[in-house]
Amino acid sequence: MSDFGPAYSRDALVAASGHGFVFRADVRFQDIDAAGIVFFARIFDYFHDAYVAFLAESGHPLHTAISTNAWGAPLKHVEADYLRPLRFGDPLQVALVRADLDGSNLFVGFRIHGADGAVAAVGRTHHVFVDPVAWKRTAPPEALRIAFNRLGRSEGA
Amino acid sequence: MSDFGPAYSRDALVAASGHGFVFRADVRFQDIDAAGIVFFARIFDYFHDAYVAFLAESGHPLHTAISTNAWGAPLKHVEADYLRPLRFGDPLQVALVRADLDGSNLFVGFRIHGADGAVAAVGRTHHVFVDPVAWKRTAPPEALRIAFNRLGRSEGA
Amino acid sequence: MSDFGPAYSRDALVAASGHGFVFRADVRFQDIDAAGIVFFARIFDYFHDAYVAFLAESGHPLHTAISTNAWGAPLKHVEADYLRPLRFGDPLQVALVRADLDGSNLFVGFRIHGADGAVAAVGRTHHVFVDPVAWKRTAPPEALRIAFNRLGRSEGA
Amino acid sequence: MSDFGPAYSRDALVAASGHGFVFRADVRFQDIDAAGIVFFARIFDYFHDAYVAFLAESGHPLHTAISTNAWGAPLKHVEADYLRPLRFGDPLQVALVRADLDGSNLFVGFRIHGADGAVAAVGRTHHVFVDPVAWKRTAPPEALRIAFNRLGRSEGA
Repeated sequence: MSDFGPAYSRDALVAASGHGFVFRADVRFQDIDAAGIVFFARIFDYFHDAYVAFLAESGHPLHTAISTNAWGAPLKHVEADYLRPLRFGDPLQVALVRADLDGSNLFVGFRIHGADGAVAAVGRTHHVFVDPVAWKRTAPPEALRIAFNRLGRSEGA
Repeated sequence: MSDFGPAYSRDALVAASGHGFVFRADVRFQDIDAAGIVFFARIFDYFHDAYVAFLAESGHPLHTAISTNAWGAPLKHVEADYLRPLRFGDPLQVALVRADLDGSNLFVGFRIHGADGAVAAVGRTHHVFVDPVAWKRTAPPEALRIAFNRLGRSEGA
Repeated sequence: MSDFGPAYSRDALVAASGHGFVFRADVRFQDIDAAGIVFFARIFDYFHDAYVAFLAESGHPLHTAISTNAWGAPLKHVEADYLRPLRFGDPLQVALVRADLDGSNLFVGFRIHGADGAVAAVGRTHHVFVDPVAWKRTAPPEALRIAFNRLGRSEGA
Repeated sequence: MSDFGPAYSRDALVAASGHGFVFRADVRFQDIDAAGIVFFARIFDYFHDAYVAFLAESGHPLHTAISTNAWGAPLKHVEADYLRPLRFGDPLQVALVRADLDGSNLFVGFRIHGADGAVAAVGRTHHVFVDPVAWKRTAPPEALRIAFNRLGRSEGA
């Protein structure tokens, strides 16, 4: 159902050594749903917040890419696995565990650690690099290729 | 990477005849992201809004289930495929295309039609029925089994 | 602290006869906060959803105004009063109770009825019409003036 | 239209010396609306995030208050003034500028600095302390009284 390799499976992401890039946040008061836990879709907000922080730390912030029409990377497919519910006030570590580039395709694997450091969720996103004006597939900028490769390709996991 | 059968693949959900249950909504002004399209995670909000509307129409509203501690069905795994970007003002038809129950597992397949009726996204969710007090797996209430079976099992798609 | 007249006070909005324009919605599962009620800021989402629906019904949808750079009306000041908590599943009637135009200024008064029709919140917004390219104050389009005047000026409340 | 004193006026909050408590954040990709700026209602999310951070730093985190039914402080009235639009990637400083307690009433004044440190918005919230079980007005816990007084009463502004 997807093009993610075995290194992106639930178990592989849970078990992967190393953290890649880690973004820290707290579960917000307003992220909770009527069942008293973090609304499942907010997990993807957390993944994306970490992705945005990674790009900024790499020196290629997404807001600059957008304002200069430099590149775009819309989502083609996303998935998440939920292991433990998250609650208001839980400290989060949202890790970009690994990334792989294949032509215009970018695959990123994520892991969220919640209270006590336990893994609460893992997930994966498949972006496609496009020219934001023509909205056609394109290769990623070389600088991003370097940044994502430095994060750690799945081969090295 | 998941327990969804072939009837839940991207192509099968896009092509499935019939709509199951359809929830209508409009893309909200605040659902847009800095790239000018619906933020990818909001797709799951739309899926869940349709699921909530389906339960209400079936006579078993989720808010009653929560307030009476009758049953819970947290998410174990979710996925989405993006086919076309959605924009502010686009009218949405969010369809529960099919559903399957297997013990305490509930699988639901979704499809979103946007402007001009074109398919904008499909997705699937895997819920697990639990006793909301003991937080242990349980069978779904018989009334829900009937409602989801009426929606259409994948065998009949 | 604001330029709203007495017709926009909490008590006047609660007591106003007539409904102006009414937008119906349901409290979403994900609008709830960690205290178990609708997160206070979502009230402004509801106000804005009703404003967007009013503009669409008036034949001047906001998404067209944006895509054609026809006009903009950013917020200068907003307020809300909370009378009763809202809970998941509550049916909402979000009313644009009244509106007044004064030069480039637009004042709108809102009222939200929740379960059993009881008033749950009232509020008011002060927009300023601007040319969306030059970002300078401008008069509202005549068609909008007519639409908002038809809604009911505060003099007639 | 409100019970806020002159120290909570737009101009007084903009001009107030000192910062009280400052919470740092970044405008998120998904906080943007279809007009390309931060959706106006998200300003209140930022205010509340800063309020939650202030309580945590004071040693009285809101999540503990909720899980122990210690105290609640729902909103009775809120307001915001918008001075400059905020955009994706803008670094934010969200300041609790001042606070006043009067019986069971808590008044808090906020100020948000965006790009280049310019004031982008100010606002004020009126909470009412309640017993979260009986949902009746009560005095705030003494520890909170001390924390909010240390933040700076409006008399000293």
